[in-house]
Amino acid sequence: MPSNSSLSTSAASNPQTRHKIVVCTDLGPALPLLRDRRDIDVVTWTENRCCDRNWMLQNIVGASGVVVCFQNAVDRELVETAGPNLRVVSTISVGYEHIDLNVLAQHNIRVGYTPDILTDAVADSAVMLALMASRRAGHSYAFVKNNEWPTFHWTPFAFCGPQLSTTTFSPTPPCGLWNHTLHLHPPAPAPSRNPHATNNSAPLTGSYPSRPSTSPALARDSDVLFVLAPGGPTTRHLVDEAFLRLMKPTSVLVNNGRGSVVDSTALARALAEGWIWGAGLDVVEEEPHVGPEHPLVGEPRCVVLPHIGSAALETRAEMATLTARNALAGVLGQPLPVALDYSTLV
Amino acid sequence: MPSNSSLSTSAASNPQTRHKIVVCTDLGPALPLLRDRRDIDVVTWTENRCCDRNWMLQNIVGASGVVVCFQNAVDRELVETAGPNLRVVSTISVGYEHIDLNVLAQHNIRVGYTPDILTDAVADSAVMLALMASRRAGHSYAFVKNNEWPTFHWTPFAFCGPQLSTTTFSPTPPCGLWNHTLHLHPPAPAPSRNPHATNNSAPLTGSYPSRPSTSPALARDSDVLFVLAPGGPTTRHLVDEAFLRLMKPTSVLVNNGRGSVVDSTALARALAEGWIWGAGLDVVEEEPHVGPEHPLVGEPRCVVLPHIGSAALETRAEMATLTARNALAGVLGQPLPVALDYSTLV
Repeated sequence: MPSNSSLSTSAASNPQTRHKIVVCTDLGPALPLLRDRRDIDVVTWTENRCCDRNWMLQNIVGASGVVVCFQNAVDRELVETAGPNLRVVSTISVGYEHIDLNVLAQHNIRVGYTPDILTDAVADSAVMLALMASRRAGHSYAFVKNNEWPTFHWTPFAFCGPQLSTTTFSPTPPCGLWNHTLHLHPPAPAPSRNPHATNNSAPLTGSYPSRPSTSPALARDSDVLFVLAPGGPTTRHLVDEAFLRLMKPTSVLVNNGRGSVVDSTALARALAEGWIWGAGLDVVEEEPHVGPEHPLVGEPRCVVLPHIGSAALETRAEMATLTARNALAGVLGQPLPVALDYSTLV
Repeated sequence: MPSNSSLSTSAASNPQTRHKIVVCTDLGPALPLLRDRRDIDVVTWTENRCCDRNWMLQNIVGASGVVVCFQNAVDRELVETAGPNLRVVSTISVGYEHIDLNVLAQHNIRVGYTPDILTDAVADSAVMLALMASRRAGHSYAFVKNNEWPTFHWTPFAFCGPQLSTTTFSPTPPCGLWNHTLHLHPPAPAPSRNPHATNNSAPLTGSYPSRPSTSPALARDSDVLFVLAPGGPTTRHLVDEAFLRLMKPTSVLVNNGRGSVVDSTALARALAEGWIWGAGLDVVEEEPHVGPEHPLVGEPRCVVLPHIGSAALETRAEMATLTARNALAGVLGQPLPVALDYSTLV
């Protein structure tokens, strides 16, 4: 039963009012945390695709909470259509570019999100991409699919790539992290709103210099460079032609951060001309508009995956569970398990 | 200058005789270890494909040593064509199925090979295959190649697979090794010659039970099962339908050992019917005659790579170096750096 605005202008002002939560994305095993409660009405988008905007606008009316993913814009229209009951927006993501924080601040609506939980799953995929890029797994995978194995002449150095584990040649292979150790760390203060925020790192752990205009040591020393930086103008094309030209011809670039951090045109040239050995990309500029005509998709030394870094069942189940708990706490007026403190961002 | 059999019937009996080494495979950066010596004649196959048998037979005459890979059969014909100078066969492989050890024993010819060196490179590829199989990397890689990303509707559980790193759901995911920990270990005593050899493990580390007819605990407990066992009749189809039916529906099978250890027909059914989650195979029964019509190559939850487990540049360079050193020591009458003790195998 939806909340009835003729009885109450705000659910917050009347604890007897039934709360409605609109769930715009698949919460999988976490949905029962909401659906099984008798004191809450849950309206759920059930199709296995991105939630329709019109469906959201129709169902948001009178809702106390809304559960979204990064594809669902939470803007002034949605908030005003929801009406005064809306207390919480709970997103199943670490990013919040899809949420208009200024509008939410004006209406005193809280935001729940899911940072940190996905770190290990992304790390797994970063290691996988580093191995796939160095050991030419994309090429060799296609080789079998394309029926080339039966006529293959084996030679000792066929399909070889640099070894990631230690060897007598390289007992301590250097690994660069464009993230934790050296530079930007998600969730950084929203860079699109405050380009100077990276100079002000007080609330975050680690060091956050302003845009590193040059980092020749990082480029020159890394056998594997993991790019894990967030997007936005302050990190755009940190890995550009000049940077790539400094890297070793046996080095591997992995991007699990945001596509915009790496200049795709320069990277395609670096691979084609052998400035670096290979690349493993979970994110690409202009994604998802990336198809076989893209120079990086067609490049044999590049592995492009469709942004699946955190796509591990356990991690997504944990993200869904936290998203449900954030929504529930929000509508019940309790502290959110993990709230976005957006006071510095608006 | 080739050795001259009119002056000496055996180079071994005359230290003044020049030695000839026939190199039938690409030794890459290790070739100068032989070629740069003034006291040795080196004849090298230089084409980037498997050495011709006829070329081998023509050039082996009078040789003191021969360098081969697993594709070059070393049999009675070759040994008798070489003549009495032949002292050493040096193979760039851990396996020796291509070498007729009985013939070599009759002629007192030593065998150099390259065990152990490739362990880390194979371990890297095993981890890569486990990640690729669990995280559906083959499927998602093809997804981008096939231009499906631009029209993709993201949902939280799309592309998800089991997480290999620890999670709150699974803080200690069990990993099975069909090799070191539990069963057979390469280089095991040649199983095709002595099927009872695995009961006699004295010269080897670890325990070597005879064929494990059932290993339900290994099947039931493993989240990831790494098959690293050698081939031959004693290990054939250790992973069969009965074994696969015991495995968890979220488990992943990785085979870096020999294709014959896993029943391909049963595995294809296990994947299609969801008995297990996925498989990552560097080796397949009947390889290299494995193309797109093969049920495992067409299976979306299976990643098949063309036996590239040890194909890391540093490892292959180390294997090539050891192969050259084995050949050199053999023709000079010195102890081989790594000799195959085949006394128990013939």
